[in-house]
Amino acid sequence: MSFRIGSGIDFHQLGEGRPLMLGGVHVPYERGCIGHSDADVLLHAICDALLGALALGDIGVHFPDTDDRYKGIDSKELLRHTYMLIQQEGYRVINIDSTLCLQEPKIKPHVPAMRAAIAGLTGLTEQDVSIKATTTEELGFVGRKEGVVAYATVLLQRF
Amino acid sequence: MSFRIGSGIDFHQLGEGRPLMLGGVHVPYERGCIGHSDADVLLHAICDALLGALALGDIGVHFPDTDDRYKGIDSKELLRHTYMLIQQEGYRVINIDSTLCLQEPKIKPHVPAMRAAIAGLTGLTEQDVSIKATTTEELGFVGRKEGVVAYATVLLQRF
Amino acid sequence: MSFRIGSGIDFHQLGEGRPLMLGGVHVPYERGCIGHSDADVLLHAICDALLGALALGDIGVHFPDTDDRYKGIDSKELLRHTYMLIQQEGYRVINIDSTLCLQEPKIKPHVPAMRAAIAGLTGLTEQDVSIKATTTEELGFVGRKEGVVAYATVLLQRF
Ligand SMILES: [Zn+2]
Ligand SMILES: [Zn+2]
Ligand SMILES: [Zn+2]
Repeated sequence: MSFRIGSGIDFHQLGEGRPLMLGGVHVPYERGCIGHSDADVLLHAICDALLGALALGDIGVHFPDTDDRYKGIDSKELLRHTYMLIQQEGYRVINIDSTLCLQEPKIKPHVPAMRAAIAGLTGLTEQDVSIKATTTEELGFVGRKEGVVAYATVLLQRF
Repeated sequence: MSFRIGSGIDFHQLGEGRPLMLGGVHVPYERGCIGHSDADVLLHAICDALLGALALGDIGVHFPDTDDRYKGIDSKELLRHTYMLIQQEGYRVINIDSTLCLQEPKIKPHVPAMRAAIAGLTGLTEQDVSIKATTTEELGFVGRKEGVVAYATVLLQRF
Repeated sequence: MSFRIGSGIDFHQLGEGRPLMLGGVHVPYERGCIGHSDADVLLHAICDALLGALALGDIGVHFPDTDDRYKGIDSKELLRHTYMLIQQEGYRVINIDSTLCLQEPKIKPHVPAMRAAIAGLTGLTEQDVSIKATTTEELGFVGRKEGVVAYATVLLQRF
């Protein structure tokens, strides 16, 4: 039996005039994450954890922000492609745990939709996809609502 | 054999007139963590890692800070309850690793008592509970002594 | 079969007149990390993850920055010693995943050399050592180029 662990972290600034995409879901809010793609910080952290578990590089290597193909891209496409790479290496995902750090808005109501979206993209049931959320108690750049951070941890098994 | 991983992160501001509770232990210091409960940042990160490993939500879902039942509560009660949930799902904890990020005070002398407290609450021996500590080299809000951060990672196994 | 997980995080300030050592490799840059040792933030995070997985304390316990023996020391020596401790406990490393958070310079060109260095010190092949890199999108102290942060996660197995 062959296991691997991976972890990912991603950062994005919040800015006006952008939809806030988190975990593949549009979360209504007056601002959104800034980035070359749709800037879905949670999906990016999960992609990085999956790539990292198999030492396949990182999201910047696979989907460079200098490449016009990825401009404004739906990050669900990036996760779909990443999961395909994991499968090609002969691995499946056992479980994903993740944490969104943002001061507002409340994302709890959107967590079920996010879990469903991620499960659908990674061959998992929703019981194997965890999304937690926390503020930073107004500390640092997250607390000042300048940006958001996401952490993800994954366990893989060779099939 | 069925394994799961989880990870947690928690943040609290430091303020006057509060005892500093870390890992279930009172650490003498001129300030303490601010929060609805006793604000034990390390136990909260561990609770979140345990909940996350089984996709049971997060500490804010189970112990909302709008609920008067949890006002000033000893976070050891939160960890005890969280561990009961893990057991009810049919899992045991293999090991816990954690890191406290704070600029001061030195917490090394208190680590053995913290490990004993956490082991007692999670059915582990102290050899299976790791608590590391680091400053942020005076960087950021931790370095300015505005707050503390704790990270926890756990490995679970179905029994 | 006996597994353990560990995670580490390390912080260092950037300053003038220091070489930038990352993952055992000298990365050309106008500044470098400040610290008692060579301040290799990535190797320190990996050491902490390895120690944490077996609850052996942390890098500050094993290599105190008040000890002249470690002044200016090559952190590869610290990782070599840490890996020896892991082996003495009867464990081997399955895989290491890590993330460097720094605003500049680009470290991608140096990742192969870093992976080779870390693999050589931990009995792994390069396929079992992952190094990812990200900016913080100019957020916080990393974004202001005041410092760098490294995260590492490891999976160990008893042999
Ligand atoms: Zn991103
Ligand atoms: Zn808390
Ligand atoms: Zn260090």
